Amino acid sequence: MDLSLIPVWGIVAGIIGLLVAIFFAKSVLSESPGNEKMVEISKAIQEGAMAYLNRQYRTLIPFALIICIVLLIVKGWPAALSFLVGSVSSAIAGYVGMNITTRANARTTEAARTSLNKALGVSFRAGAVMGLSVAGLGLLGVAGLFMLFGDAETINSFAFGASAIALFARVGGGIYTKAADVGADLVGKVEAGIPEDDPRNPAVIADNVGDNVGDTAGMGADLFESYAATAIAGLLIGFSVYKGHGAGEMLFLLIGVAGILSSIIASFFVRTGENANPQSALNKGLWGTNILTAAAAYGLVNWILPPSYTAANGIVITPNRVFAAIVCGLAVNILIGLITEYFTSNQKKPAQSIAKASETGAATNLIQGLAVGLKSTALPVITICAATLISFQAAGVYGIAIAAMAMLSTAGIVVAIDSFGPVADNAGGIAEMAELDPSVRKTTDKLDAVGNTTAAVAKGFAIGSAALTALALFNAFAELAHLDKIDILVPTTIVGLFIGAGLPFLFSAFAMEAVGKAAFDMIAEVRRQFREIPGLMEGKAKPDYAACVDISTKAAIRQMIIPGLLAVGTPVLVGFLLGKTAMGGMLAGGTVSGFLMAVYMSNAGGAWDNAKKYIEEGHHGGKGTPAHAAAVIGDTVGDPFKDTSGPSLNALIKVMGTISLIIAPFLR
Amino acid sequence: MDLSLIPVWGIVAGIIGLLVAIFFAKSVLSESPGNEKMVEISKAIQEGAMAYLNRQYRTLIPFALIICIVLLIVKGWPAALSFLVGSVSSAIAGYVGMNITTRANARTTEAARTSLNKALGVSFRAGAVMGLSVAGLGLLGVAGLFMLFGDAETINSFAFGASAIALFARVGGGIYTKAADVGADLVGKVEAGIPEDDPRNPAVIADNVGDNVGDTAGMGADLFESYAATAIAGLLIGFSVYKGHGAGEMLFLLIGVAGILSSIIASFFVRTGENANPQSALNKGLWGTNILTAAAAYGLVNWILPPSYTAANGIVITPNRVFAAIVCGLAVNILIGLITEYFTSNQKKPAQSIAKASETGAATNLIQGLAVGLKSTALPVITICAATLISFQAAGVYGIAIAAMAMLSTAGIVVAIDSFGPVADNAGGIAEMAELDPSVRKTTDKLDAVGNTTAAVAKGFAIGSAALTALALFNAFAELAHLDKIDILVPTTIVGLFIGAGLPFLFSAFAMEAVGKAAFDMIAEVRRQFREIPGLMEGKAKPDYAACVDISTKAAIRQMIIPGLLAVGTPVLVGFLLGKTAMGGMLAGGTVSGFLMAVYMSNAGGAWDNAKKYIEEGHHGGKGTPAHAAAVIGDTVGDPFKDTSGPSLNALIKVMGTISLIIAPFLR
Repeated sequence: MDLSLIPVWGIVAGIIGLLVAIFFAKSVLSESPGNEKMVEISKAIQEGAMAYLNRQYRTLIPFALIICIVLLIVKGWPAALSFLVGSVSSAIAGYVGMNITTRANARTTEAARTSLNKALGVSFRAGAVMGLSVAGLGLLGVAGLFMLFGDAETINSFAFGASAIALFARVGGGIYTKAADVGADLVGKVEAGIPEDDPRNPAVIADNVGDNVGDTAGMGADLFESYAATAIAGLLIGFSVYKGHGAGEMLFLLIGVAGILSSIIASFFVRTGENANPQSALNKGLWGTNILTAAAAYGLVNWILPPSYTAANGIVITPNRVFAAIVCGLAVNILIGLITEYFTSNQKKPAQSIAKASETGAATNLIQGLAVGLKSTALPVITICAATLISFQAAGVYGIAIAAMAMLSTAGIVVAIDSFGPVADNAGGIAEMAELDPSVRKTTDKLDAVGNTTAAVAKGFAIGSAALTALALFNAFAELAHLDKIDILVPTTIVGLFIGAGLPFLFSAFAMEAVGKAAFDMIAEVRRQFREIPGLMEGKAKPDYAACVDISTKAAIRQMIIPGLLAVGTPVLVGFLLGKTAMGGMLAGGTVSGFLMAVYMSNAGGAWDNAKKYIEEGHHGGKGTPAHAAAVIGDTVGDPFKDTSGPSLNALIKVMGTISLIIAPFLR
Repeated sequence: MDLSLIPVWGIVAGIIGLLVAIFFAKSVLSESPGNEKMVEISKAIQEGAMAYLNRQYRTLIPFALIICIVLLIVKGWPAALSFLVGSVSSAIAGYVGMNITTRANARTTEAARTSLNKALGVSFRAGAVMGLSVAGLGLLGVAGLFMLFGDAETINSFAFGASAIALFARVGGGIYTKAADVGADLVGKVEAGIPEDDPRNPAVIADNVGDNVGDTAGMGADLFESYAATAIAGLLIGFSVYKGHGAGEMLFLLIGVAGILSSIIASFFVRTGENANPQSALNKGLWGTNILTAAAAYGLVNWILPPSYTAANGIVITPNRVFAAIVCGLAVNILIGLITEYFTSNQKKPAQSIAKASETGAATNLIQGLAVGLKSTALPVITICAATLISFQAAGVYGIAIAAMAMLSTAGIVVAIDSFGPVADNAGGIAEMAELDPSVRKTTDKLDAVGNTTAAVAKGFAIGSAALTALALFNAFAELAHLDKIDILVPTTIVGLFIGAGLPFLFSAFAMEAVGKAAFDMIAEVRRQFREIPGLMEGKAKPDYAACVDISTKAAIRQMIIPGLLAVGTPVLVGFLLGKTAMGGMLAGGTVSGFLMAVYMSNAGGAWDNAKKYIEEGHHGGKGTPAHAAAVIGDTVGDPFKDTSGPSLNALIKVMGTISLIIAPFLR
């Protein structure tokens, strides 16, 4: 086949993805948004979310411009343009996705008045808009720029642009959502004793906005980055291995094509019966995508790869060996999801052990939760190690990059089922705030419960893919920096390793402190409103929602700067001061430690959350007991763990990698 | 000079250390143990501590014998004998030290009735018995075995023996002390509302025993291990660098001689006025040792090293360059202590920020505490990195080993001022339980406050020296395994790195869970006693102290097995399954991640503790306020962090290293 056509395939598939996204968006918007009150609430959430995104992107403009100018001077206009396209695409995916998910919430509530399947349909299609925007823009950007410039090294600025945005989206969104959540919970639920999502709580709108900017926009930017970085690192490695001999160098784009088309097809499998568990509908979508992608990839490798190819380093690559690497990547996808679910589900032992420990108070709840989080790192480590060894055994470094790309190719459906969660969550909140019949809330609660599980799966996916992406970037860095070894017996390498491993610790400290500071402001404001607005507790007066939204926004933007600069600045400093082997050590240390910390924090947070839910189901005395109070404290500590620091670490380890690719040629 | 005489110097200095220890012990025992009640309480603590040590060592006998037999078969009797000597020496140091410190407590209380200086003298000399036993037996063992077998590779089993004991001593002691502490605090202080060290609390004796088995015996075994491992790794590296050309290969023993003699001299500087701060007395001892060691080392290197020596790899070593490495090691000593103090002292911002966060409840207290702990890793990382780079710049790998040995040479005085802490703490407890005049408690409180600071300094020392020891072991491993590079671009190496970095997470999870389980039993027992023993709360009946001591002992022994086997088994498995480059990656990953986790956990725990003390001093409302209750929860979570998992990680990273030296020749 004509190799030069492969990028065209990528472009076409990307556009198809975007068209289907538009179709889904129209279909969501054609639904009724419900009564006046529901529209009003939905609008408040939407405006809050958009206000935040506007402010976030506006804050990043000077920062992006400086990088653009630097790239223009040292690397030329194609690199600068690629950077711009990468960052703008990430922003567009965020805008479009958020626009739809925040409009879909009231429509889901309205649909839930008549049918569970209809409510699932509205919320899932809204999520799919985000998912297909991410995958579609990612594929379109990489393939389009590659066709334009014909060189993977030039367009890695696209990945860097995506990285830079993702970093701030993760950190800022994570701070926003948790400041609002902690504020709403601590003052509203604990101090004032009013239920979740009660319209009397001044922070309730900010809390709902937070679900969107954290889970939807943050996750979208995160996976957009992984997608772009993996595809480009793959192209770099592919070209160094194949050196123009055969289509293997551009297989990465074709895997992307297979993944996005599979996601689109599988998204039509997502429908449920009235009394069925919506979980199985989403599982069909997820499994369907994986199976279809594997099948398509099997056809592809046998069609376009030569029957056998011997790379310069002597590794023999055959279609079946490449397929084995693809299966490896898809298996990581499934396995990390299952492990994450095991360690966080309230149906399983880990979360239940935390619930039991709550009987002896908050301290034992916390000790047990921290232990569960720490323990949950072992199996993901083994999974990643096995995937690395097997895919390397199959096809060398090329195999590792292929496995990463296979995993990421399913990003469309993963983001879809992840973004579905906040929509369902918001829908429940709107049902509550609009004082609809409790049966509506019951229906949305069914969806929301599923959303918690899919969020865990997506989190596992984001972390696992970040690790594989980082490994691919690490190998691509060695390629670009012309390193044939990175020897940790050399002291500068081990120093790089130390600094790289230490960075996630310092970075998550800043992220957690930021939540603490932002929450402090929020708590003061909510307390002030309860104190100063007469008739608020009695439901006679309306709280000032906008003030809380504003506090979250300002605090998140202010607090994201330091961790962001730390993440971007340290690799540059280490690279130029200590040289490229130190940089290599740093990438390895950062990947390993960042992965461990991300798993630890995310799973501890998830387990605390579900331990609380388990108690709320009536175990260990149920709501209102000291055990429940202890579990609420654990859940609150877990919030910044799982929604701020944990996810931000994914962005951290990838941004270290994409920066390293940019500066690699300049390092000594 | 005659090189063969150098080990004799080591033997003589080791014996001098032990003789001075005996002198100090006699001097402590010649003091009055106080009235009958004090003697009775002291005896209970002593019996509990000895019962625990007996049981711990007895449990380890079969384990040690198996290793001994394996070593006998695969490495011959010198290795087996060295292992035996190493483990028995560690046990002896533990026994002797504990015997004296647990007898010194009541004597310190009695001395405090008349004079602060006298009380300081008793408690410090008791600590010095432990300190000089550790350093003396360490130096005697290494020098003696080296003289006997003339080969560093054979006697590295001595270090392995010390490691194996230290691992279980740290884990078991850590579980013991925190199970007792959590039990005593949660039920006694929080639920029953009785003060600390109240004789009505059934867990009060177990709590005091815990201070000894955790801080004294655990720390002693830990630093004995560091001492032995560093000296032997140093000899290994020294011989590979000097290959018989000059005394440089045995400089390690001489630095040990300088350190122990300096510690002895400086220990006589430790005396205080009646109204002075005892801290400055201990500082004199610490600084005195460092300065004297540096001065002696300066003389030594210029006397015995050739003016210039060019190693096989081209590195030129001069006396001044070696001296620079020595200063590096001593500087790490001072710097890590200062950093630890900054992050944990209640006079400084970090702990105070946690106190402030307590105002909004336990959740914000915990978030802030975790953030402080995470943040506190950055400066120690930079310190270790700088020391590594500078000492390598000065004299290559030899320089790194020299820096580690210089740091460890001061172990005698560090263990002394660390072991002093539990004696002062116990003394206060005895004053309380024996219902002495409050002025006595006031005097012992002065000592106890200093003990908290010196404990922080010693903890920093233990962690920092563990990192340097691990780096020295890592280089010695490369030497013994004939690795001229450990390339992290090779997938098995990066897999080793992943597993090595993951091990501290899993290991500390087990340690924390063990505390949770043991504390659970303890809480149930204390509650039972309060419920079932009539008149206990009114002070009319005596609680069953022995039952609590027994529960802690059994739980600690039972729970130390799994983390212990994990620590010993994983490196062997990785080494034999994945080969020696994977083992190298594992050592690097374990060192880096274990160091970070140890600093994070120790400092978070210390800061939580002092945040609580800060509130108790009257800030943020003082005792009895919700802020105080929140701080108590943080402190309780911090307990297993700082006293179980954190310190155990030091032992973990070193045992990985000493095992690697044993199996290095057998790996492919």
